[in-house]
Amino acid sequence: MHARTKALETLLVRLNSRFGERISTDPDELAKVSGDESGLPKGNPGAVVWPMATAEVALVAQEAQELGVGLVPRGAGTGKAGESIPLGGELVVDLSRMNKILELRPQDLYAVVQPGLITAELDKAAKEHGFMYPPDPASWESCSIGGNINTNAGGPRAVKYGVTQRYVWGLEVVLAGGKVLRTGRRSIKGVAGYDVTSFIVGSEGTLGLVTEATLHIIPAAPVVETAWLSFADPVTASRASEHIFAAGITPRMLELLDTTAMDVVRPKSAFRLPPAGAAILIECDGRDEGVMRDLERVCEIALARGATESAIAQNDRDREGMRRARRLVSGSLKEAYPYKISDDVAVPRSKMPDLLTRAQELGAPAGIKVAAYGHLGDGNVHINLLCKTADERELAKPVRQEVLRLAVSLGGTVTGEHGIGIAKRSELGFEQSRELIELQKRMKLAFDPGGIINPGKALPV
Amino acid sequence: MHARTKALETLLVRLNSRFGERISTDPDELAKVSGDESGLPKGNPGAVVWPMATAEVALVAQEAQELGVGLVPRGAGTGKAGESIPLGGELVVDLSRMNKILELRPQDLYAVVQPGLITAELDKAAKEHGFMYPPDPASWESCSIGGNINTNAGGPRAVKYGVTQRYVWGLEVVLAGGKVLRTGRRSIKGVAGYDVTSFIVGSEGTLGLVTEATLHIIPAAPVVETAWLSFADPVTASRASEHIFAAGITPRMLELLDTTAMDVVRPKSAFRLPPAGAAILIECDGRDEGVMRDLERVCEIALARGATESAIAQNDRDREGMRRARRLVSGSLKEAYPYKISDDVAVPRSKMPDLLTRAQELGAPAGIKVAAYGHLGDGNVHINLLCKTADERELAKPVRQEVLRLAVSLGGTVTGEHGIGIAKRSELGFEQSRELIELQKRMKLAFDPGGIINPGKALPV
Repeated sequence: MHARTKALETLLVRLNSRFGERISTDPDELAKVSGDESGLPKGNPGAVVWPMATAEVALVAQEAQELGVGLVPRGAGTGKAGESIPLGGELVVDLSRMNKILELRPQDLYAVVQPGLITAELDKAAKEHGFMYPPDPASWESCSIGGNINTNAGGPRAVKYGVTQRYVWGLEVVLAGGKVLRTGRRSIKGVAGYDVTSFIVGSEGTLGLVTEATLHIIPAAPVVETAWLSFADPVTASRASEHIFAAGITPRMLELLDTTAMDVVRPKSAFRLPPAGAAILIECDGRDEGVMRDLERVCEIALARGATESAIAQNDRDREGMRRARRLVSGSLKEAYPYKISDDVAVPRSKMPDLLTRAQELGAPAGIKVAAYGHLGDGNVHINLLCKTADERELAKPVRQEVLRLAVSLGGTVTGEHGIGIAKRSELGFEQSRELIELQKRMKLAFDPGGIINPGKALPV
Repeated sequence: MHARTKALETLLVRLNSRFGERISTDPDELAKVSGDESGLPKGNPGAVVWPMATAEVALVAQEAQELGVGLVPRGAGTGKAGESIPLGGELVVDLSRMNKILELRPQDLYAVVQPGLITAELDKAAKEHGFMYPPDPASWESCSIGGNINTNAGGPRAVKYGVTQRYVWGLEVVLAGGKVLRTGRRSIKGVAGYDVTSFIVGSEGTLGLVTEATLHIIPAAPVVETAWLSFADPVTASRASEHIFAAGITPRMLELLDTTAMDVVRPKSAFRLPPAGAAILIECDGRDEGVMRDLERVCEIALARGATESAIAQNDRDREGMRRARRLVSGSLKEAYPYKISDDVAVPRSKMPDLLTRAQELGAPAGIKVAAYGHLGDGNVHINLLCKTADERELAKPVRQEVLRLAVSLGGTVTGEHGIGIAKRSELGFEQSRELIELQKRMKLAFDPGGIINPGKALPV
């Protein structure tokens, strides 16, 4: 069932001569652009278009505005909160064919790219010049830069390098109505006017369609060392990690796996995960042998603070094995618990033991098993409510609400990295005042008074 | 002459019982809150109030909104673009008495502070725990955090650590009408809703009155090493600095002084500046002896790329002497050329030689001598048009316009760190489209529909 209004039909007629085979209402094509990786049901788009240039996106936005047809920008569809799920009858603007690196200027610390570029491709291109593009969401080999910008994506390296916003210097954005806006700068610094660029980052595609980005790249640290630390339980692991930071060491990755996460990964992992109640995967990077000294110090601190075992990767094969074990967690948990609910709450680091302990307690009365893994170093751990059936999932839903409220009560947030999308529109109010939400609605109107750009996302309806 | 409307008189009557001696129309008091460090003429406020708490700021904002009286937020008055200069008849809200550190939580990487806190005080408090607050504008021993937030202040350390926005996690802001808004988070990560916090940073006090800030602090690098590099001319210095960065070294400071800057500083400096056509003050920091190795490598590269001399500070006294020589530049130039015009343009790093050369060429026909100093590593050099008389200053004004246009034509900005204020309202259009400026005006209205908060700043009138 695909909703097509008269307005959409008219839009399709108007766009047909320009786009030809690059616009479609074919149900099979629509099925491919209706969902994401949130586990939410697929949406119900009216049509899909694949522009190849900014001028084409502008044409779409102009005609859609005139006819009042909603537009849903789409990249690789790897979102975790439903940002790119159409609510009904919209035209999906699939930007995956605008995927080029337009400029790469290591000497000036920036690259200019199109939104459909796969994130890891930029990092790879930068690497050839001794540079890196730090944001590395788990999906970085399949997700696109446009999606990263719209969700302000993080990743394991964020603990040292921060998240996407820090790396966005300027944007080209097509507004509702088709005007093409250029924001920001290509110099390292710049404070002319309001920071519209930073405001668009993380706005979930609701303010305009990003068609180009000027992204900051930085010199890559040539030396990386990796270790695997085993603990009796996640709380001990969390406390030990506080001591690592207190020693002045900022690792470039500090990831937690609890015993459930390790159990589901173990059968698939080349790296043999030591039996333990919890593990930390930790990496340090830098320019010289000081890196290994830091990592050895990390292991000493961990062992003094309750670690039962430490293993340092001896070569790149070891390192990749450890990293892969971490990357396998999400998919393996999903296979074992197909109806699981995963949330990406974040709390101040020192509150992590409280979060871990109390999340377990919240699950217990409903008989819901709770797993935790992810970005421990950032206080951003994925709390998973493990459900094997749809019935269990129903039981878990109120538990999820309590976990989100718990995170807020600990000084944290309902979403550390995935965003609001359509998944947490009602829960934004757990964290933000009515006044703040109303202000954001007024700001949305400043960009899109007709409400045609990604309608229904990011804010309560 | 101080403008006082009927509306202001009514406001004063209403606020009198609450503020008593903390509200004033005394001309001597008004004179103290009428100007900044931009060199622009003082403004013409109607009154000044010194709140001690958020609730008092809210009361002021509520009454002012009802009566339509403009409010000018003010910190330490060290702005460089007129952000805190009243245009006529406003009530200045001097926040310098709200100057406390409310919380300091190194384990959670944040501090909560009031806007009147002097910037260096936060760095000092963090240092006691082995932490730092990186933004270090030249005025950091006298400027306040609220002003830093409103201008998104940078400083020499920005070349490694970035500018203020990176360190602002959350804000408490009093809106026009008196509503108190809390934005942002106290967790390291968080993407709930639009990033209103980052948008307020750098908005020059035009969106609301910042009454509290949650600021990110980071572990301090325990080892700092400093060197002074001499060159034949600024262009050679600039090219050599590109080679330093290309070697993968990110210094924590890379500052330029040209020969004019050195000449005015030399009589006052304990550090004996070697005679040269240009100099670079450079610092590296880190956790161990790798820092000195980096700095020695910096000197090698510089000497291979045209430096005539390098000197490494042997102790903290040397280091402080070099730093002080840099800090003396602005004031000493001002003494020698009281009518000088200083601009803070920024360009992509590789365009710096073009900027330096062509700025000289632009000054020549009018007989205006041009000096350059500042944040070379960020491509953000202060181009100074040196004027000894008011007449010379008139001759220099069109040259200044050309310098700003030049920066934009090189891919840069009319303001790298000081902001638009009232100094560059007409010049914002050199860099930004009408569409972008109109969008910003709509965003301002979303916060302040009556236009009472810092009227006339940041955007073209």
